[in-house]
Amino acid sequence: MAESDPGHVPPRGFPATEFETRTARAQTLMARARLDALVLTTEPEFRYFTGLLTQFWQSPTRPWFVVVPATGRPIAVVPAIGAHAMASTWLDDVRAWPSPRPADEGVSVLAETLREVVGPRSRIGVPQGPETHLRMPLSDYRRLLDLLPGSEAIDATPVIRALRIVKSPAEIGKIAYVCDVVSAAFEALPDMLREGMSEIEIFRAFKIACLERGVDDVAYLVGGAGPGGYESIISPPSARHVGPGDVLIMDTGATFDGYYCDFDRNYAIGRAGDAVRRAYEVVYEATEAGFAAARPGARCADVYFAMQRVLDDGGALGNEVGRMGHGLGMQLTEWPSNMPGDHTELRPGMVLTLEPGMTFAPGAMMVHEENIVIGEAGPIWLTRRAPPSLPIVGG
Amino acid sequence: MAESDPGHVPPRGFPATEFETRTARAQTLMARARLDALVLTTEPEFRYFTGLLTQFWQSPTRPWFVVVPATGRPIAVVPAIGAHAMASTWLDDVRAWPSPRPADEGVSVLAETLREVVGPRSRIGVPQGPETHLRMPLSDYRRLLDLLPGSEAIDATPVIRALRIVKSPAEIGKIAYVCDVVSAAFEALPDMLREGMSEIEIFRAFKIACLERGVDDVAYLVGGAGPGGYESIISPPSARHVGPGDVLIMDTGATFDGYYCDFDRNYAIGRAGDAVRRAYEVVYEATEAGFAAARPGARCADVYFAMQRVLDDGGALGNEVGRMGHGLGMQLTEWPSNMPGDHTELRPGMVLTLEPGMTFAPGAMMVHEENIVIGEAGPIWLTRRAPPSLPIVGG
Repeated sequence: MAESDPGHVPPRGFPATEFETRTARAQTLMARARLDALVLTTEPEFRYFTGLLTQFWQSPTRPWFVVVPATGRPIAVVPAIGAHAMASTWLDDVRAWPSPRPADEGVSVLAETLREVVGPRSRIGVPQGPETHLRMPLSDYRRLLDLLPGSEAIDATPVIRALRIVKSPAEIGKIAYVCDVVSAAFEALPDMLREGMSEIEIFRAFKIACLERGVDDVAYLVGGAGPGGYESIISPPSARHVGPGDVLIMDTGATFDGYYCDFDRNYAIGRAGDAVRRAYEVVYEATEAGFAAARPGARCADVYFAMQRVLDDGGALGNEVGRMGHGLGMQLTEWPSNMPGDHTELRPGMVLTLEPGMTFAPGAMMVHEENIVIGEAGPIWLTRRAPPSLPIVGG
Repeated sequence: MAESDPGHVPPRGFPATEFETRTARAQTLMARARLDALVLTTEPEFRYFTGLLTQFWQSPTRPWFVVVPATGRPIAVVPAIGAHAMASTWLDDVRAWPSPRPADEGVSVLAETLREVVGPRSRIGVPQGPETHLRMPLSDYRRLLDLLPGSEAIDATPVIRALRIVKSPAEIGKIAYVCDVVSAAFEALPDMLREGMSEIEIFRAFKIACLERGVDDVAYLVGGAGPGGYESIISPPSARHVGPGDVLIMDTGATFDGYYCDFDRNYAIGRAGDAVRRAYEVVYEATEAGFAAARPGARCADVYFAMQRVLDDGGALGNEVGRMGHGLGMQLTEWPSNMPGDHTELRPGMVLTLEPGMTFAPGAMMVHEENIVIGEAGPIWLTRRAPPSLPIVGG
C-alpha cells in the first residue's frame, strides 16, 4: 500500500503551531468584527480549531461545541463520550456533560462557558450565512440565547470564510496526496472496466482500488452511465449494466486525514460518437482556460468566464450545475464558487476545483473536474491531468 | 460478490406504495397536531418522503427542501442540479431554482410553495427538538418566516419521530442485509489480522472486505486498540501497530441502499488477561439480558436496566457512552435511546442496537453492540451473534 512509503505520505494530524496560528488569525478577524467569542457547532469548524477527527458526527444525538474566546486557546464543550478523544488534542480546557441528556444537551454548560469568557453585553459570533448551518436543535439554540440576556448573536460567516479559504502548506499536502492517489486509481480504471459490469460493480471496484492505494474513505462517489451521455451527475450508481456506446462519469470525493479531493473522470465504453468526443474536448479545453485564468489576483468570476467562453464556442446548450468549480478542503465543497457573481480574489494557498460542464445534446451532459492550488506564481495542478481525448475503454 | 445472488440481496429503492403509506401516516399525525404543512431540510427526512438517495448532501452549498402538505403528495423544492435526479422519484411536483444563488438560495420559491398549500395563518411544522437540526442557513430561515407573516413555525419533532421510529418490512430487509454482510466480514476478520499490522491497515482491510461482500459504503468505522483495553470508541484508527495483549474494538456503520447497520466486535491480539476476558463475558451477558427484555410493550428504560444490572454485577466502574443502544435506520443513530429517562414503548418494527459498555479498569473500556428488530412475538437478531468469549486472534 502507498501508505507504507514514508517519503510520500503526509504526516497525520498537525503540530500545535498550526492550531495556534489558526486561533491567532481568528482572533485578529474577531477583533476587527468586534466579536467577543465564536460559538461553532459544525464538524469542519470544530475540527479546524481543535484538531479532533472523528466520524462520530454521523450520530445526530449529541451536539459538540467549540468556543473561541477573544484571547487564549479555544474551549471545547463536548458530550462525555468524546472527552477522552479530546484529551489528545492541543486544547487545555475541555468541558464535558453526561450525554444523551435531551433536557439539557450541553446548553447550560455552553452558556456558563460563554459567561466566563465574555462580558454581560457581548457580541457572540455564530455562522448564519450562505453554506452554513447550525448543528444543534433550534429550540436549544433559542434556550442558549435566553441564558445569555443582553448578548447578541452576530453572523460570523465572513470570519470563518476568511480563515478557511486559504489553506496551510500542511493542509495542501494532505489534499495533494489524496488527489494523487485517486488520480492513480482513475488511471488504472480502464484495465478494470469490462463491458457488462453494472454501475454498482464498477463503483464498488473503484472504491476498493482507492482504499488499496491509500485513501482513508471514499466518502463521495456519484455518477453513472448512459448511451451517448449522462443526465445526472449526483446519482448513486444503478444496477444497469454498461454497454457499448455508453458514456460513464465518476465524480469522487475521497479523503485522507479528513481532507478531500473532488474531481471526476469520463470514459466511453467500447466506442464513442463524434458529438460526445467533441464535448469531451470542449470541457477539457475549458479546464485549460480556467487554469490559465486562475492566477493570484484574478477573481472567481474571471475563471468562470474563461471557461464559459470555451463552452459557448463549443456549442454548450446549458449547465445545471450552476457554477464551474469551488473551494475544497475539509469539505467536499467550500466557498468560493467559480460563477458570475463571485468576485473573490484568488490568493496563494486557495485550493479550488475547475469544473466546466455543459449539456451538449438534449439529455446528455459532459462535466469535467480537476483540482488546483493557487501558488505565488500561478496555479498548480493537484490532480494528474485527465487525458485530452475521451478514453475508450472495455471495448 | 454477494450482490450477484438475487435471492439474497434486497431490491433497491421502494415501490410508490411505500411513499404513499409514509405520506398518509404523516398527514394523519399532522392533522392530530394541527399542522398545515411540514417543511423538512435534512437528508433522512428528504429521502423518507421523496425516495432520493444521493451523497450530494455532503456539499453544504445548496439546501434541499421537501414540503408535506395536509393532503396530496409532497412537493420538492430543489437546486437545479438535482432536478433531473428528482424526476425518477414518485413525486409529481418538483420545483427547482438556479443554484448557487446565495442571495436567494431557494427561499423565495419555498415561501411561494408554502403560500400555495397553506392558508395565510398557518401552523408550519419544522423539526426543532432533540437530535434534529435545520440544514439551511439561519439567516435564510429567518427570511423564510418573514415571507410568511401570520404563519407560525411549530416543532414537528414528535411527528417525525413517530413516523420513522417504526420501520417497514422493506426497510428492515435492507438493514438485515447490511447487518448480515458485515457480520460475515467480521467473522472473516481473524484470518486477516496479523500482529504488526497498524490500526490504519486493519481498518482499511476491513472496509475492503465489507465492500467485496456487498455493502455500498463503510460510512462509519471507528475504534482502536490498546494494551489490555481501549480508552475511546469514537476515534479513527491510528498508525500504531497492534501487538500481543492488545484489545481491538471496531465499531462500524456500513450502508446498503441508504440503510445502516451499527455494531462492533472486540478481539484480543495474541493473548488476553483475565480481567478483559471477564469484561467481555459481562457485556456479552448484558446483551443477552437486553435482548430478553426487548419485548413488545417493554420500555427502552427497561432494556437499559436489564443490561445495567448485569454490568453492575460484573464490576462496571462507569460508562461514558451515556446510553446502551439506540434506534437505527437511515441514520447511524436514531431515537429512542436505551437509557433511564427514555420511556418509549417498544413496538414491532422498531430496529434497535443493544450496546452495553463499561469501564472495567482505569483507562480500559469494553463495549459490545448488536442490532435487533422488535417482532410481534419478541426481538429478533439482525446481526449474527458475536462469539460468547473474547476471540484471540493473530497470535
